[in-house]
Amino acid sequence: MYKVLITGGAGFLGKRLARQLLARGELTGPGGKPQKIDRLVLLDVVAPTDLDDPRLEIITGDIADPALLRRVVDAEVGSIFHLAAVVSGAAEADFDLGMRINLDATRSLLERCRELGHTPRFVFTSSVAVFGGKLPEVLPDDIATMPMSSYGAQKAAGELMVSDYSRKGFLDGRTLRMPTISVRPGKPNAAASSFASGIVREPLNGEPAVAPVAPGTRMWLMSPRHAIANLIHGHELDAQTLGLPRTVSLPGLTVTVQGMVDALREVAGDAVADRVQWKPDERIRSIVESWPGAFAATRAKALGFTADGSYADVIRAYIEDDMG
Amino acid sequence: MYKVLITGGAGFLGKRLARQLLARGELTGPGGKPQKIDRLVLLDVVAPTDLDDPRLEIITGDIADPALLRRVVDAEVGSIFHLAAVVSGAAEADFDLGMRINLDATRSLLERCRELGHTPRFVFTSSVAVFGGKLPEVLPDDIATMPMSSYGAQKAAGELMVSDYSRKGFLDGRTLRMPTISVRPGKPNAAASSFASGIVREPLNGEPAVAPVAPGTRMWLMSPRHAIANLIHGHELDAQTLGLPRTVSLPGLTVTVQGMVDALREVAGDAVADRVQWKPDERIRSIVESWPGAFAATRAKALGFTADGSYADVIRAYIEDDMG
Repeated sequence: MYKVLITGGAGFLGKRLARQLLARGELTGPGGKPQKIDRLVLLDVVAPTDLDDPRLEIITGDIADPALLRRVVDAEVGSIFHLAAVVSGAAEADFDLGMRINLDATRSLLERCRELGHTPRFVFTSSVAVFGGKLPEVLPDDIATMPMSSYGAQKAAGELMVSDYSRKGFLDGRTLRMPTISVRPGKPNAAASSFASGIVREPLNGEPAVAPVAPGTRMWLMSPRHAIANLIHGHELDAQTLGLPRTVSLPGLTVTVQGMVDALREVAGDAVADRVQWKPDERIRSIVESWPGAFAATRAKALGFTADGSYADVIRAYIEDDMG
Repeated sequence: MYKVLITGGAGFLGKRLARQLLARGELTGPGGKPQKIDRLVLLDVVAPTDLDDPRLEIITGDIADPALLRRVVDAEVGSIFHLAAVVSGAAEADFDLGMRINLDATRSLLERCRELGHTPRFVFTSSVAVFGGKLPEVLPDDIATMPMSSYGAQKAAGELMVSDYSRKGFLDGRTLRMPTISVRPGKPNAAASSFASGIVREPLNGEPAVAPVAPGTRMWLMSPRHAIANLIHGHELDAQTLGLPRTVSLPGLTVTVQGMVDALREVAGDAVADRVQWKPDERIRSIVESWPGAFAATRAKALGFTADGSYADVIRAYIEDDMG
């Protein structure tokens, strides 16, 4: 019995990853052994909708509860995608909640893997929010983290733990620093970057949307298609090839917020693009404008991670995948 | 009543800092207000010896025990020097102990300060052990941490917390990344860098000592005199001047292990220097040789932190301060 666990499995990325893994049917397990996916466990605070497969096991509960983790993570779990997180805006508003989910729950998961001793593959998602302060135009791989949000600080601490638990041989971790994902389907969320999907999604759905940052603000973006492909690629990479640290800054697409609206105009026309209103929001600006706009991602590219070619293509993919 | 707390107050640095603070008699408190030191609380697992002053309060106990911290850290504690740590070799040998003291106790202290709400000044010591992997000859201030030891990972995570708790206004933290301290008086300890004092101290005391790394290994060193001066300087700095992040890589002295023995020969003669034996130890080498040998320390120098001029002077200061 080979089990795969996705935390945050009811989220948009979690569900999309689940579909992809079910279609794919296999993953490389501990020791580099190919494994058929017998069961895919989705853990989240709510049950995911729109998923149906006999291999699925849905578990709802608090990921920061070690007793739940002991029950969910057993010796048959060989692969873990740890996507559950309290997003940037929410972690800034509720410090304790962010620490509990982003830091403590991550550590509990790592501890549970260590306790079991079968070194599962562990994919952890981190973020551009670990960076801040004075940054060069293009970030090299060895630039210091300097979070200007609690979310970023918690993710950066998680990165350190995943690398150290891996170095100690407690599990086989890999942390992927994800660009901002755009275009996310669904509703706005509490992430400071929520607008980076909203300014495309809402206008395409005939609704107004607010761009809360300066038009020239550079964003470092990745489409859901590439995000899922890179999550699986990150899981499949050989540990020796990856080396230490286990953190990789993924490649992405640099585009200004103005450029995003221009691409929307190109793909969907003036009437749609004109639904974007520019209304600066200081709280969001102070977080988002501390994030970097471009990475060299030298190591990630050498490891075979991929990025989108143009933002217009990203919008077209969204229309194809998520608007039916 | 203004109280100053030193954790790890029975350690060699803690005691020396205590003496210096008692002699100095005052510190800058929260809000930049000058404060006479009414009480100096030394917290450690054992009581410090050789200290005597009516302002001293000695408390022994487990720093990872939140109940103890609630008792020790009260609203009158305006300055905290958090020096208590499980050193590199010990944290590598006992992972759980390192996590408990280096990470959990640090967080508990930060939480206690947050709970009190009077934003005490909080000086935290970090280490060159947060760095590792492929490093440039001279490390710039914005180079990524890449710990190759659990001690380094725990310190790096602590740095992130100190900066974020400070950014949130929960306290007024400052993290000083200390070079390896040499020459420490006393006995060898479980730090991988223990030899960096032992190869001077033991020969001066007529005993043999082992240099467990290659002669060409560069060390990044600081004498106890400069360490204490920099700890106090770090406390006194204005928060606005310091800015974010709150972590500063201190200046230091670059010297190879061979150069250390040469300086010993210069100061104390052949008979003493010949007591050093070269015996590579793989466990120590793998940790120590992952550490950087030189830092630009641009920010630290601009902030007024200082370093030793020559290792021969460091040895002379040791003879004067600790062998008198």
